Amino acid sequence: MINKNAPIGVFDSGVGGLTVAREIMRQIPNERIVYFGDTARVPYGSKSKETVTRYARQIVRFLQTQEVKAIVVACNTASAYALDEIEKEADIPMIGVVKPGAKVAAEATSNGKIGVIATEGTINSGIYSSYIKEIKPDVSVIGKACPLFVPLVEEGLLQDPVTDEIAKRYLTELIDIGIDTLILGCTHYPLIRSTVGRIVGEGVTLVNPAYETAKELKELLEAEHMLNEEAAKLGDNKYRFFVSDAAEKFKHFANSIIKYGILSAKTIHIEEY
Amino acid sequence: MINKNAPIGVFDSGVGGLTVAREIMRQIPNERIVYFGDTARVPYGSKSKETVTRYARQIVRFLQTQEVKAIVVACNTASAYALDEIEKEADIPMIGVVKPGAKVAAEATSNGKIGVIATEGTINSGIYSSYIKEIKPDVSVIGKACPLFVPLVEEGLLQDPVTDEIAKRYLTELIDIGIDTLILGCTHYPLIRSTVGRIVGEGVTLVNPAYETAKELKELLEAEHMLNEEAAKLGDNKYRFFVSDAAEKFKHFANSIIKYGILSAKTIHIEEY
Repeated sequence: MINKNAPIGVFDSGVGGLTVAREIMRQIPNERIVYFGDTARVPYGSKSKETVTRYARQIVRFLQTQEVKAIVVACNTASAYALDEIEKEADIPMIGVVKPGAKVAAEATSNGKIGVIATEGTINSGIYSSYIKEIKPDVSVIGKACPLFVPLVEEGLLQDPVTDEIAKRYLTELIDIGIDTLILGCTHYPLIRSTVGRIVGEGVTLVNPAYETAKELKELLEAEHMLNEEAAKLGDNKYRFFVSDAAEKFKHFANSIIKYGILSAKTIHIEEY
Repeated sequence: MINKNAPIGVFDSGVGGLTVAREIMRQIPNERIVYFGDTARVPYGSKSKETVTRYARQIVRFLQTQEVKAIVVACNTASAYALDEIEKEADIPMIGVVKPGAKVAAEATSNGKIGVIATEGTINSGIYSSYIKEIKPDVSVIGKACPLFVPLVEEGLLQDPVTDEIAKRYLTELIDIGIDTLILGCTHYPLIRSTVGRIVGEGVTLVNPAYETAKELKELLEAEHMLNEEAAKLGDNKYRFFVSDAAEKFKHFANSIIKYGILSAKTIHIEEY
């Protein structure tokens, strides 16, 4: 029997997945969350499928010790590389951020040209393209890896001429091709949404998989009759945060993204799971 | 009994330590090298002392399975955070990159104002300052963390207006203070030495710990009568490379730094050591 009042597990390579956690808090405010950020091994975007899958498997084992009722893979690279594998091994529902983003982008495009910006790993996997073509086989999907966006965001250069310049270099190719839809395919990117939006112009629809994932999670919990029935209260262990390193630094960054006041984050040794 | 013909172990969080390996190859060309790059957990610069020390300990255990006769910690962050601990536990000589760099900087300064640019971890440890003040107590050491330099180097933007702009921001404070000596306190930084040199100007002496470390290693091996007496040949397993992830990508980058032609790099699971 599923415990409806159990928390939802959400994980990411670090802080980026907090943009997904934030959307879950907004859209289904009654749910508890256990968040894990793999800050000891961040980033995932430049690492191999095998390594990312091994890391994701350890995290799922950890989240299961927290008795979560469902797991959200709030990292595009882990969704791209590991979700298929870890889903098979789990006995609870699991959703990634790629499918919901792909679905909305397929619906949004008018001219059939969709851009995807993401980490090297996500782009190399070709996963956005595969999912989109399953829904709409005749679209073109153009992927562009943007490896400097994550460090720029983590340095806090959200509104900065350097970020503008780098964004122009990454996006020119997509603009020249004439995309009308752009997927922000890395959980850090919604934090520079306004820069990206300004450069690609108003004619391009930006798709934020964080938003779509929270929506899909809500629908899934409703369909499976798994929505929390208690009114969980803040302070009442409603939102718990775990990291594999540097909890204080995580807490600081997290508090700049999530406005609920994160009281604490606990460090665990993830490689022991 | 020490086997003089055994290799020297060199390790780093990733590819940066190759600048140190390159110096060892130049200065003591007769030595064998086993290099390990922790590409599955790179970077170290933003992680905690505890985590970096745990990682370094695993790597030392791995290098000992390769029967190395000495170990070079070719990573400033690991030298800053972990060397004191791991040195105590090992029965072979171990040298880091911080002490040799600090020594030369203390000798080089005329006005007593030394700048250090490095990762957050190395700067927070205050280790360059401690070592320099042991030698010359009356100097000022001004540290500046430069977190974007590593991603910029790894993106190949070695000569680029964006790297110039970021370097200006990081270095202005040090220029204004009037430093006459600047330590390149991260193994990636020698790769943007010309950009940094241009911005700080000719009056500032740049100290490259990679060079100083290889020199100190040579002196140590001579003093301890541990120099290799065989003429090890290239191709004869002289230089061997191991990584914890993405060996092909490592090989590609390594071949751009080291001109000897790296034939292969092998992936191992470092967390099992």
